[in-house]
Amino acid sequence: MHWVLLANGHCQLAPRIQNLLSTADRLVAVDGGGSHLLAMGLTPHLAVGDMDSIPSELLELYRRQGVPLHLHPPQKDATDLELALHLAFAGQATRITLLGATGGRLDHTLGNLFLLSLCQAHSVPTCIMDAAQSVYLADSFLELQGTVGDTLSLMPVTPQAAGVTLSGLEYPLQNATLHFGTTWGMSNVFTSSTATVRLETGRLLVFHLHRD
Amino acid sequence: MHWVLLANGHCQLAPRIQNLLSTADRLVAVDGGGSHLLAMGLTPHLAVGDMDSIPSELLELYRRQGVPLHLHPPQKDATDLELALHLAFAGQATRITLLGATGGRLDHTLGNLFLLSLCQAHSVPTCIMDAAQSVYLADSFLELQGTVGDTLSLMPVTPQAAGVTLSGLEYPLQNATLHFGTTWGMSNVFTSSTATVRLETGRLLVFHLHRD
Repeated sequence: MHWVLLANGHCQLAPRIQNLLSTADRLVAVDGGGSHLLAMGLTPHLAVGDMDSIPSELLELYRRQGVPLHLHPPQKDATDLELALHLAFAGQATRITLLGATGGRLDHTLGNLFLLSLCQAHSVPTCIMDAAQSVYLADSFLELQGTVGDTLSLMPVTPQAAGVTLSGLEYPLQNATLHFGTTWGMSNVFTSSTATVRLETGRLLVFHLHRD
Repeated sequence: MHWVLLANGHCQLAPRIQNLLSTADRLVAVDGGGSHLLAMGLTPHLAVGDMDSIPSELLELYRRQGVPLHLHPPQKDATDLELALHLAFAGQATRITLLGATGGRLDHTLGNLFLLSLCQAHSVPTCIMDAAQSVYLADSFLELQGTVGDTLSLMPVTPQAAGVTLSGLEYPLQNATLHFGTTWGMSNVFTSSTATVRLETGRLLVFHLHRD
């Protein structure tokens, strides 16, 4: 079951994102992210948020439409998106896509990227997607479908990522070690429609920047 | 000696940033970042970049002005900003500020944030600053001057950050452990003009969001 969570960062309606929204099994409005859905004429299956950050008219609309609401006070120990992810795990999500998770406050964006590790701990493949890119957290194997010329950047979020082997890319690493805080893995280029990332230890944030 | 490196992300001229530029001992144009300096009528002490990404008219101007140039081919194993940091370390920098390091491509922004660990390895206190915020990487103690109401977000970039103690903030942690990939440390609030972050093990990205 594919859950799509819409947070309140930027959300530009690229065709890739429209396709995704039309095939979601569960569509979740996270906090102000519901406004993006409203602009597209979509009603979420459920809404999650602070009592003070969901726009009141949207909250009223959701109540009228009978959308299940998961409201909680602003003074809490996790962000709305983290709480929404826990609902997805409990709801048998087998795949999660996060939209509107980038482009706002930088600390929020980074917090959202790091939440991918929570999804990994729950064994649910998760992607953060915006109009420009798809971001994944890899700890073993990842296969990406793209276009020749797409950009791929790898960034360890562990002290190192070892046994890194890449295929389908201009700089095909073989059993390499990437260290946290160096920029060696930045801006590789797709030379095929399929690229693969394999690693033995550590974790890599993988940025796939789409040309189209 | 305070080195200020200007990369080619966003650079909005907040008063905080203007003050900083006027007191820099070494001003470095990194790649297209030189265009920001040109717009401010400033000439860097040196320029670093790919041979294909410094605008050609700027390169020509620098040659006429006698600005030392550190050019290198685009096919390299580190970003321009990483190479510029190594020049700062070699040039006896005792403090570094990175401007224009946020707001562009997300993989670049994240790569720049993670470069703070390279500065830590060289024992040079470094801050990434933009109009909205100052970002640090803390591994022991950090004191921040701010304004009541400023936001502080903490994010471990190690599996955990332990012995975390905060003061001057609305949620003053005491010997707490923060885990990678959870959002517990987000959006704390300054209750004093000075906030402190102390930790015993691990490393924390610290985002200080300025109200003014």
